[in-house]
Amino acid sequence: MTQARRTRTHSDIPYGPDGVPWSEMLLSEGLANGHPALISDPVANPREVYPRDDLPPSAFELPPTGLSPEKRHAALIELEEYVTRKRDHFLGYQANQDQDHYRLDLSRFMESHVNNVGDPFTPGNFKVNSKVVERCVLDYYAALWNAKWPHDKKDPESYWGYMLSMGCTEGNLYGLWNGRDYLSGKALVTDPESTPEQPRLLWVQAAPPEDLPEEQKRNALHPVAFFSEDSHYSLTKAMRVLGIDTFYAIGQRDYPTDNPLDPGRPWPKEVPSERGPSGYSADGPGSIDVDALAVLVEFFAAKGHPILVNLNLGSTFKGAYDDVRAVSERLFPIFKKYGLLEREIVYGKDQDGNPLKDTRRGFWLHVDGALGAAYLPFLRMAADNPNYEYVPEVPIPEFDFGLEVEDRETGRFYDMVHSIAMSGHKWIGAPWPCGVFMTKVKYQMRPPDNPAYIGSPDTTFAGSRNGFSPIVLWDYLAQNSYDKQISMIREAQRMAHYTEQQLLRLQETLGRDLMVARTPLALTVRFRRPNDEIIAKWSLSSESLKLDPNDPNSRQLDYVHVFLMPWAKPGMIDELVKDLHAPNAFPPETRALPTARPAREVHENALSLAHVPHSGRGFE
Amino acid sequence: MTQARRTRTHSDIPYGPDGVPWSEMLLSEGLANGHPALISDPVANPREVYPRDDLPPSAFELPPTGLSPEKRHAALIELEEYVTRKRDHFLGYQANQDQDHYRLDLSRFMESHVNNVGDPFTPGNFKVNSKVVERCVLDYYAALWNAKWPHDKKDPESYWGYMLSMGCTEGNLYGLWNGRDYLSGKALVTDPESTPEQPRLLWVQAAPPEDLPEEQKRNALHPVAFFSEDSHYSLTKAMRVLGIDTFYAIGQRDYPTDNPLDPGRPWPKEVPSERGPSGYSADGPGSIDVDALAVLVEFFAAKGHPILVNLNLGSTFKGAYDDVRAVSERLFPIFKKYGLLEREIVYGKDQDGNPLKDTRRGFWLHVDGALGAAYLPFLRMAADNPNYEYVPEVPIPEFDFGLEVEDRETGRFYDMVHSIAMSGHKWIGAPWPCGVFMTKVKYQMRPPDNPAYIGSPDTTFAGSRNGFSPIVLWDYLAQNSYDKQISMIREAQRMAHYTEQQLLRLQETLGRDLMVARTPLALTVRFRRPNDEIIAKWSLSSESLKLDPNDPNSRQLDYVHVFLMPWAKPGMIDELVKDLHAPNAFPPETRALPTARPAREVHENALSLAHVPHSGRGFE
Repeated sequence: MTQARRTRTHSDIPYGPDGVPWSEMLLSEGLANGHPALISDPVANPREVYPRDDLPPSAFELPPTGLSPEKRHAALIELEEYVTRKRDHFLGYQANQDQDHYRLDLSRFMESHVNNVGDPFTPGNFKVNSKVVERCVLDYYAALWNAKWPHDKKDPESYWGYMLSMGCTEGNLYGLWNGRDYLSGKALVTDPESTPEQPRLLWVQAAPPEDLPEEQKRNALHPVAFFSEDSHYSLTKAMRVLGIDTFYAIGQRDYPTDNPLDPGRPWPKEVPSERGPSGYSADGPGSIDVDALAVLVEFFAAKGHPILVNLNLGSTFKGAYDDVRAVSERLFPIFKKYGLLEREIVYGKDQDGNPLKDTRRGFWLHVDGALGAAYLPFLRMAADNPNYEYVPEVPIPEFDFGLEVEDRETGRFYDMVHSIAMSGHKWIGAPWPCGVFMTKVKYQMRPPDNPAYIGSPDTTFAGSRNGFSPIVLWDYLAQNSYDKQISMIREAQRMAHYTEQQLLRLQETLGRDLMVARTPLALTVRFRRPNDEIIAKWSLSSESLKLDPNDPNSRQLDYVHVFLMPWAKPGMIDELVKDLHAPNAFPPETRALPTARPAREVHENALSLAHVPHSGRGFE
Repeated sequence: MTQARRTRTHSDIPYGPDGVPWSEMLLSEGLANGHPALISDPVANPREVYPRDDLPPSAFELPPTGLSPEKRHAALIELEEYVTRKRDHFLGYQANQDQDHYRLDLSRFMESHVNNVGDPFTPGNFKVNSKVVERCVLDYYAALWNAKWPHDKKDPESYWGYMLSMGCTEGNLYGLWNGRDYLSGKALVTDPESTPEQPRLLWVQAAPPEDLPEEQKRNALHPVAFFSEDSHYSLTKAMRVLGIDTFYAIGQRDYPTDNPLDPGRPWPKEVPSERGPSGYSADGPGSIDVDALAVLVEFFAAKGHPILVNLNLGSTFKGAYDDVRAVSERLFPIFKKYGLLEREIVYGKDQDGNPLKDTRRGFWLHVDGALGAAYLPFLRMAADNPNYEYVPEVPIPEFDFGLEVEDRETGRFYDMVHSIAMSGHKWIGAPWPCGVFMTKVKYQMRPPDNPAYIGSPDTTFAGSRNGFSPIVLWDYLAQNSYDKQISMIREAQRMAHYTEQQLLRLQETLGRDLMVARTPLALTVRFRRPNDEIIAKWSLSSESLKLDPNDPNSRQLDYVHVFLMPWAKPGMIDELVKDLHAPNAFPPETRALPTARPAREVHENALSLAHVPHSGRGFE
């Protein structure tokens, strides 16, 4: 078999940083022969195709010759100046920029590649790691979140976790992946063809239980996911990546006229959030509507589906907390009624013909605690301790592994939370995204007890894992006692309150409704969207919410928000409020005009799987 | 509805760093009341439960009081000393530790949280970002890999990519996710219920084409994955996470007796690698067996399945390169024969009743270039340019976006590679895992052309993305011209050759078969596993391969390898070879003894989905 060979060279670079064609640079390097970066056709100059950022790209272009030391240093200085300037007016996102101290003490670790490959509790041969430090950070959060610690793989009640290399996107993906496989009857078993000396694992799919009615049997290993309309966009992505069906996808496909919240109307794409004064959720607090969730969950539980729920602690835009305690108590009797508190998953037989099985919950509650899981425990300590004289606006939400619900009939307590993910770069602050994922040993996808089993090191999402991040979080926790962290979150609450008050004063001065609002305990205050210049100066995050999403002519609420991270100081708020006094600070209200519909795409023989958000929700 | 409330406190810490119970520390902080870290029952001391690492955990434990400045500094110094010591004998993994220079110039960016949220080509409002720098790095690799650049979302042939926040696990997951959705007929369309001012997207599933025979129709949107037995373990994980069926899973389930490589025998779990002198792959070079791959692919193509292939460039253990050119040429006529070069995917109709459709390939080749994609282009420049006087052992593999195969009948050239992932911390070296993912605009999952569409910013795997990593790679590329990088990879090749020669000399001296082997062009040399002390000292990675995996009594080859990254200097190799002269350096050969089978788990009513590797392949 021979085919004509051709390798095209597309690398058609008609210019260099100084206007010198790359071809000339390559010639000067003696690389003109057979070089992939040879000129063939002129292409557009990236400087014209790419978005115009505040930072001009010309200083950073990388020609085949590299850059001279002078140019390289000049570019780094320009970048540092840009980053510092933007940081100094950074109010719109839940990322703490208060981290000058890391450089002095931790930059020494930039000289090594520290990699915590695989499981944090398996030492491994990649010795340049910080797993000892990682385990101390994990223990710290296990204690803080009322999980049983230390991790002990022989103790099903003890915690297991690891530090993330991405932010909470990874933690949510990992939690929902675990949830999907746990609920859908996946199991890891010892490969019967392997030997005790070299055990291998097989990933198997259990068969649905035989003794159920047809519909229940068909759905018993088919989990359905629920999350609110205020959830981070990464939740929708996780559903797509993991191939998890949302209640919307199944509802719309199999029960198009049975939407239990509004019979006859289309299914909502996500669980509604609580309504505000308008009667719609757009001006509501941003937390999940527990009653609506219960109605939706019961609909699918009755049909035999296991239930996968994501709850938010500090939602992206409104900073709202889903009430994990209320959800647990409200769903508990539903889970009990439909046999989801405990179910047997049979995935094989041993050599004596006895069934191999697990007893599993028929539900999984994942808590996206990206922001809130880092500080709510400290607010609770303050509220519980009279020495702090702290009277919270509303009770501090419970969300962690200590949350239990009692079955009144049996007196037995059930722990309700299966997994928690937290970001390290949000409340705490870190030079790059990082975070913590935590669950319990009993919920891990692990092979059955087998003395020859030596432990799968591949328990984490990534193989190579950032070993620097544990050092950053460790350093923060070493420097900040519980007491200090209590002070910091209380100060942030005071700052949020102050910001709300100042914006209300501004509203009064301007005599115009600025839609100022703050969800109780939230670290963010939202208000009417100002002009683009102010948005860019302060890195404000914006969101446009239609009051009635089903009415194309409905009023549209154009919000921005500020986040009062420990980084935000009163002077910044005062300067922002001054900027908002400018005559053109608030453009006239936009309104979606009644217009022709877009070129309509009727997907007649296509199946609609999910609504993909692509604006708002912290995107921009 | 009221249930009894209970929040258990599991945080039962009977000791502190100095033997002071945490309860006393909390009392001293005034936090004894309602505190989750209160003592309830004594639990095991982590120092006893956790693996004993070289670094004692006691210095790093994080009590509620935090650590005093003295203790914190002492711990950091201890960690630095440990990391540096381990780094100085780091030979077993493909991670370049040669990166002292980053600290001086780049540590300034540790003072900010630089986050490249979302798409690199969408500026966004999170202004503390390094997207300008990221785009320059992406352009650089687009040119190096013969992709058309700059990225232009209006030009389907131009590249698109982003920098990873994890290592290649993320790049492989992302590439295979894209491949899965592309081949299975997913599409993004404008939500017909949204308005042009606020377009929303729907993720839809196309229906299979109507005009095919029953079997082809059933399989037309059901991709089958292929990867070799030398592939990184993250590939198996990606299959599980993404729910992609491997040829093994489908073969074993639907065609249990039809294994075309060995009729009547069970299906292989992965595509066989090339055989070595023994007739088995254990002592082979580690590259995929192209003939076996073609037989397997044809079996499933004939049944109508689209084909998803992962190929390796620098495999984890043997550092082998799959021959992407040979695979492309060998599979091309199969793709053509079964209509997989181009197929129509119809996912809806527009308002005039015209079909909405894409023309798509029926195959997807993803290149896991974690290691090799970073330097093979430079080896090729050297080989193509007589000025370098470089005569490679074997031709330098082609692997990139310039690789095309001609259809002899039509004279049309087809580009064959759909996506490439590369690590930044391997060949290049970085303080933490990072890397590059790249594909072409035409393979992105994007909505059909719509003037109102403003571009979905959620194109990347993570939402928050590490904005420091682009600065690290940029700095490396600014400092190292093509010419310098050619010198470095040639030096690494010479070092690998030198190491092989020294180990062969050692073998001769010892008069014992040390199983010394090096795959041509590989940066790694493998040899007989030495004792554990030597393995720990040099962070050696080990792998045990059964000669005949189907024979429990077969000879087992216990290997370790060293990787000759730019970090490895001749003095390190000389010291290692000296260590290997010790009388007990090589323990007697182990042999899997004929033993009783393990407690057999017959998964009679369970479906076997995948073999999950959990040793070797770079795990430990």
